[in-house]
Amino acid sequence: MRMKRVPAHGGNVYEAARASGRPIGRLADFSASINPLGPSPAAVRALRHTLPQLVHYPDPDCLTLRRALAKRWRLATDQILVGNGSSELIHLLPRALGMRHALLVGPTFSEYARAVELAGGRVSYLHAKRSEDYRPPLERVLDTMQHSRKPVDAIFLCNPNSPTGRAVDAAAVRTLVQAAARRRIRVILDETFVEYCADRSVMRDAGRSANLLILRSFTKFYAMPALRLGYLVGPAPLIEQVRALQPPWSVNMPAQVFALAAIGDLAHTRRSLAFLQRERARFVMSLKALPGLRVYPSEANFLLLELPMSRSACVCAEALASRGLLIRDCSSVPGLNRWTVRLAVRRRMENRRLVAALGKWLGGPV
Amino acid sequence: MRMKRVPAHGGNVYEAARASGRPIGRLADFSASINPLGPSPAAVRALRHTLPQLVHYPDPDCLTLRRALAKRWRLATDQILVGNGSSELIHLLPRALGMRHALLVGPTFSEYARAVELAGGRVSYLHAKRSEDYRPPLERVLDTMQHSRKPVDAIFLCNPNSPTGRAVDAAAVRTLVQAAARRRIRVILDETFVEYCADRSVMRDAGRSANLLILRSFTKFYAMPALRLGYLVGPAPLIEQVRALQPPWSVNMPAQVFALAAIGDLAHTRRSLAFLQRERARFVMSLKALPGLRVYPSEANFLLLELPMSRSACVCAEALASRGLLIRDCSSVPGLNRWTVRLAVRRRMENRRLVAALGKWLGGPV
Repeated sequence: MRMKRVPAHGGNVYEAARASGRPIGRLADFSASINPLGPSPAAVRALRHTLPQLVHYPDPDCLTLRRALAKRWRLATDQILVGNGSSELIHLLPRALGMRHALLVGPTFSEYARAVELAGGRVSYLHAKRSEDYRPPLERVLDTMQHSRKPVDAIFLCNPNSPTGRAVDAAAVRTLVQAAARRRIRVILDETFVEYCADRSVMRDAGRSANLLILRSFTKFYAMPALRLGYLVGPAPLIEQVRALQPPWSVNMPAQVFALAAIGDLAHTRRSLAFLQRERARFVMSLKALPGLRVYPSEANFLLLELPMSRSACVCAEALASRGLLIRDCSSVPGLNRWTVRLAVRRRMENRRLVAALGKWLGGPV
Repeated sequence: MRMKRVPAHGGNVYEAARASGRPIGRLADFSASINPLGPSPAAVRALRHTLPQLVHYPDPDCLTLRRALAKRWRLATDQILVGNGSSELIHLLPRALGMRHALLVGPTFSEYARAVELAGGRVSYLHAKRSEDYRPPLERVLDTMQHSRKPVDAIFLCNPNSPTGRAVDAAAVRTLVQAAARRRIRVILDETFVEYCADRSVMRDAGRSANLLILRSFTKFYAMPALRLGYLVGPAPLIEQVRALQPPWSVNMPAQVFALAAIGDLAHTRRSLAFLQRERARFVMSLKALPGLRVYPSEANFLLLELPMSRSACVCAEALASRGLLIRDCSSVPGLNRWTVRLAVRRRMENRRLVAALGKWLGGPV
């Protein structure tokens, strides 16, 4: 079998379409964790009306959207910075804050490390343990802060965490932020998937804790990865430090319009949450019924799975891709083993198709 | 009169709408230099068909678009990098190339200086002279390269230049690039407006000169500032250095789709060029007929104007804005004086309205 480079991220349907010769519409993408109900219909309608405004630069200040977000979260507009996807903000943060040494609670999203290293800083990992079902090891993070001889100046925590799906509760996050504050350590809290477990969010603390910066995204729950929009909330002076590095007009106009309409569509929000709760439980059950599969608990709209040791994630991903089913091979994620894959929860029929194909592959020749 | 901060850039219709209470549709924006015929209708049609693909991440490699651009310019795809507007690329370049000291041929676009300084480098300016109608001073640039005791490692040249509208011919650019190559100086050539004087472009040299990087944009001629897309061409190793710093999924999907369709619409390209030639000549004539106005020669789709010395650009911009006409006050641009404004060439009726309002204001009380 030919060697295949493991991609750094999931969700590359364009590459998959080129590689397989299938059109994108005939691929079921379990490799990116997008709301299976898709975007808010109201937001899509709003998008259609933006066409006459294409000839104008986007609002460089994203003011209408920032005002709406400020109202929603009871913040001031200068405590919010909108970015070209949260990935732009992740890459601005280490430079803006002058990070020298960041502690990453892993296994987690690879861009944190890339961003810190590109900015000239270094990273250390504290990985969750497989023997603990990848429960985020916050007590070890506290311990490391207190006793490490190599001081860190920032901690990255993704809650719920990708790709493990595990979450810590808001009280534990607050304890971490306070302990970090005493040592002048910044906490970068990525709440990209928190809509699915809103009680884990500490957005209410944003802007009040001097060392806490929270990332939110419209990619996953609001299902607009194609348009790119994320935002950062925190104390106004830190937000201004990040903003000062941002190129002008970073956030395109359709993304601003879509996001504004999407946060107003509460019916779609409720529908999406109810659907996910139901369908995730069903998907977990049918996956657990497959022989030799380990399914980790998840608070997000995706599941971390471990294949039997006779099977590698890379071969599994390739076998399913040949049937038009894209999954995320996680063997390149530091802290995970080579049997680990991640699956988005999608609509019922697609999930059934995935379970059937995976079951067939697991029952086939090794 | 209240003091007003001069904005760093033109084209902020959202801010103008908020300040004036007029809806955007009732503003005529002469402050951003966008193709007055608007975007290619074929490209707008292509956009409408992207809605079902919003739930997928954009192609992080922009491969279909890069292949089309490579074919058009007879380059390899690895000699092209697509960015979130050329402003993203302008901000990546100084960091990627490790610029310590950049020479800016001014008066010019302010983001070059901002990008170099944010990356920790410093800038020097060589300003075109008013007494020479702001003709770009390439012979002085050559002289400075040869005799300066403070060596520069990069030169930024915008051709045709914004906001002056002046261009140098391709042979002069080549002489500059070759002289710079002998001193290991990189030339960052911004051809954002070159569609309007295509014979000034040196795109044919891109990828062959080891020290030449060319920026192109879809904002102006292709009239899609709202979507954000620009690209950089140059030798593959330098392109790779810049790409290595780019956050993933920087370029949103609608921008990629729009750009691909826009470069294929040659009829719209021809129409746009013919219209601009005709209308610019007409606009210049009627502006020159106004008393005390100096109109500089322009190769682009905008005009640099100097008001009589009794009038300031700031007051002029404010007076016209109160009539819904937005122009670019250039008094904040290093190298220009406080009587200088820039006007985009727009459609006939709007240009007439501008000339009438400006004439009335010039004839009014000082």
